[in-house]
Amino acid sequence: MTETVFTYAAPALKFGRGAAAEIGYDVRAWGARRVLLVTDPGVAATGHPERVAEGLRARDLQVVVFDRSRVEPTDVSLEEAVAFARAEGPFDAVVAVGGGSSIDTAKAVALLVTNPGELMDYVNAPIGKARAPQQPVLPLVAVPTTTGTGAESTTICVMDVLALMVKTGISHAALRPRLAVVDPALSATQPPGVLAAAGMDILCHALESYTARWYGDFDAKQPEQRVPYCGSNPIADLWSERALGLLATAFRAAVHDAREGRDGSEAAEQMALAATFAGLGFGNAGVHIPHANAYPIAGRVQDFRPADYPQDEPMVPHGMAVALTAPEAFRFTFDAAPERHLRAARLLDPAATGADGPGLLPDVVASLMRDIGIPNGLGEVGYGAGDVDALVDGSLKQQRLLATAPKEVTGDDLASIIGASLEHW
Amino acid sequence: MTETVFTYAAPALKFGRGAAAEIGYDVRAWGARRVLLVTDPGVAATGHPERVAEGLRARDLQVVVFDRSRVEPTDVSLEEAVAFARAEGPFDAVVAVGGGSSIDTAKAVALLVTNPGELMDYVNAPIGKARAPQQPVLPLVAVPTTTGTGAESTTICVMDVLALMVKTGISHAALRPRLAVVDPALSATQPPGVLAAAGMDILCHALESYTARWYGDFDAKQPEQRVPYCGSNPIADLWSERALGLLATAFRAAVHDAREGRDGSEAAEQMALAATFAGLGFGNAGVHIPHANAYPIAGRVQDFRPADYPQDEPMVPHGMAVALTAPEAFRFTFDAAPERHLRAARLLDPAATGADGPGLLPDVVASLMRDIGIPNGLGEVGYGAGDVDALVDGSLKQQRLLATAPKEVTGDDLASIIGASLEHW
Repeated sequence: MTETVFTYAAPALKFGRGAAAEIGYDVRAWGARRVLLVTDPGVAATGHPERVAEGLRARDLQVVVFDRSRVEPTDVSLEEAVAFARAEGPFDAVVAVGGGSSIDTAKAVALLVTNPGELMDYVNAPIGKARAPQQPVLPLVAVPTTTGTGAESTTICVMDVLALMVKTGISHAALRPRLAVVDPALSATQPPGVLAAAGMDILCHALESYTARWYGDFDAKQPEQRVPYCGSNPIADLWSERALGLLATAFRAAVHDAREGRDGSEAAEQMALAATFAGLGFGNAGVHIPHANAYPIAGRVQDFRPADYPQDEPMVPHGMAVALTAPEAFRFTFDAAPERHLRAARLLDPAATGADGPGLLPDVVASLMRDIGIPNGLGEVGYGAGDVDALVDGSLKQQRLLATAPKEVTGDDLASIIGASLEHW
Repeated sequence: MTETVFTYAAPALKFGRGAAAEIGYDVRAWGARRVLLVTDPGVAATGHPERVAEGLRARDLQVVVFDRSRVEPTDVSLEEAVAFARAEGPFDAVVAVGGGSSIDTAKAVALLVTNPGELMDYVNAPIGKARAPQQPVLPLVAVPTTTGTGAESTTICVMDVLALMVKTGISHAALRPRLAVVDPALSATQPPGVLAAAGMDILCHALESYTARWYGDFDAKQPEQRVPYCGSNPIADLWSERALGLLATAFRAAVHDAREGRDGSEAAEQMALAATFAGLGFGNAGVHIPHANAYPIAGRVQDFRPADYPQDEPMVPHGMAVALTAPEAFRFTFDAAPERHLRAARLLDPAATGADGPGLLPDVVASLMRDIGIPNGLGEVGYGAGDVDALVDGSLKQQRLLATAPKEVTGDDLASIIGASLEHW
């Protein structure tokens, strides 16, 4: 029996300039009195979190700020945030202002201040005990300040478990924020390198969701077996297609505007909308090979320090790590759903001159990457042919993601994809 | 200052054949033990509500059934349902199985079993006191058995207030169902006349949402002034456009299948998806002139008894009442947003041969109405030129809807629209 049912869920959304000033009203309408605001030091320095806190206080809410979220959260950093919230609480709601890291930190806090036990009780098995929350999680408002992660729409909290040197997470429907507030003014000042990498994350959310295995091609599930990520479906498709259409007109323009120092352009606002749409799509369909590969690509970095990011430690930004094997991943998945790959390519670049075939989407994606300054393959971020096996091993650990691919993915398949991604053009 | 913010909210959705069998799992996951199932006698006779109740009991839920929802609820019928629920409660959740009438009845019940006071305390002013709920409303699962109303996505409960002979309602974000379960098997046996009328409701939800005043063209609002219906916006557009695309291929085919006695065809399933999509659009954008006109058209009926509906009392079914002035309404609104009207027409009928102009969308809609057996104008349901003034008076009472039109609508404008709608072809 194959599956006949798909599910869809999303946070309520408030979108537009000025939206971040209204959060106090919404939180008060839920009956909240005491709010924990979660952010990170870099975002705190922009002043946006303090302005959000002022808006909360203006509605007679008590606000406690936790501004020590770690960029790329770890089990240790999340435990610190939870300990802070348990000590300073009780709270009635959590407001996260920042990128995916702050929002994911807030998800862990919202879960663990109302539920007993420790972080590892709720982390995905086999690393953790994968316990489901027994008590309602605190309502969470997610206020993204980078355009890309989609964390405001999703049900996952991603973390590095330091002692095991492995990336895993907590995944449960209860972690989805109740309200996403997307105010383009908060993401108006991203430098071009950040906008390019984050934009590739948006693009891959849309492309991976759109090419994910069709929900009806999975085995039929019992209701208790359903997960938030159910494969491509008529609703996720809608979001993915529209995100691709927005990226087609806005992505190069937004990076160009950022290079010229024009903050808050129309194109940047369209990127915020594209990020939201792609998040709503992948938050229900799921992602696959490029995201699976991104884990070891980011995790095994040696020396690469990208422009427009802090230079104090080597890193491959998440969106860049996702992008680096995307063209070859979509060449591999082409034959599982040719018409979807071709349609995605035409949506992303209606003027593409390539012939319909396995190379069209890879060419369109690589051309975009080149134009916006993404490195030309894994070679540029420090990997060589000798690293392929280790990267494959890392990807194979992400079976939850690989299962969403539209066809079976073996270690040899991954070795081909990663090996062909050392240089794209 | 014009508006810069739009909002979007939707129930979680479970869509597909077999979805209605899983509700017990979902309701249990919310912690519920005792559930009120709300339906009406006609739907109860199909056996669907009893099968849903069995599914709930199989998950160890106690189920009490209220099967006396009135088709076209009144203040009296809603008060009866509330009295029943208050006497038989407490309940932890409400499951509505039926058309818009059962779902709206369940909304009133979910509100009034946890909140003090009486129905009229919460009804829109000036008829009622427009009080906002102070306590959380019971979580509601909406299980539509007709494809059309969109009640599973919306925040309104519509009723006739008998003593005043006026149609009004309760409108609050808290009334939106928590979960919509759309199982095409439950709407697979609609006769062709019902499918045609309900389908015109779907179509007008999409067309009115798509041509509604753009959210950014309203005056800027304070957060407490925001209503769920914020005018056309990038997200509502997405749903409306896709609903139109589904209707383009499925509507005539579904009516044809129903005429041939083929239940549960692919086209019928696409109609269920179109209904859901259009509901998600209009549940956030709003509807305007055709829906405003539908109130007096349905309310002042004298003798009309449509095929495939109960023949015991005269009626103009809601979707038919909405359709009857739609072509002329869209001719009137054309100049407020020509490109939207043309795009809607081309989505609904990609093969339309008419020239781009004010008549294209009216022609496409009227052609569809003729093909599926909708009456040829108000004349066929019993109205004449002498009734226009009274119909205009009734429409003018729906100022909340008329305010969503893309341009100002005067009584003279309505008289022209209604007068030209006596005969369409």
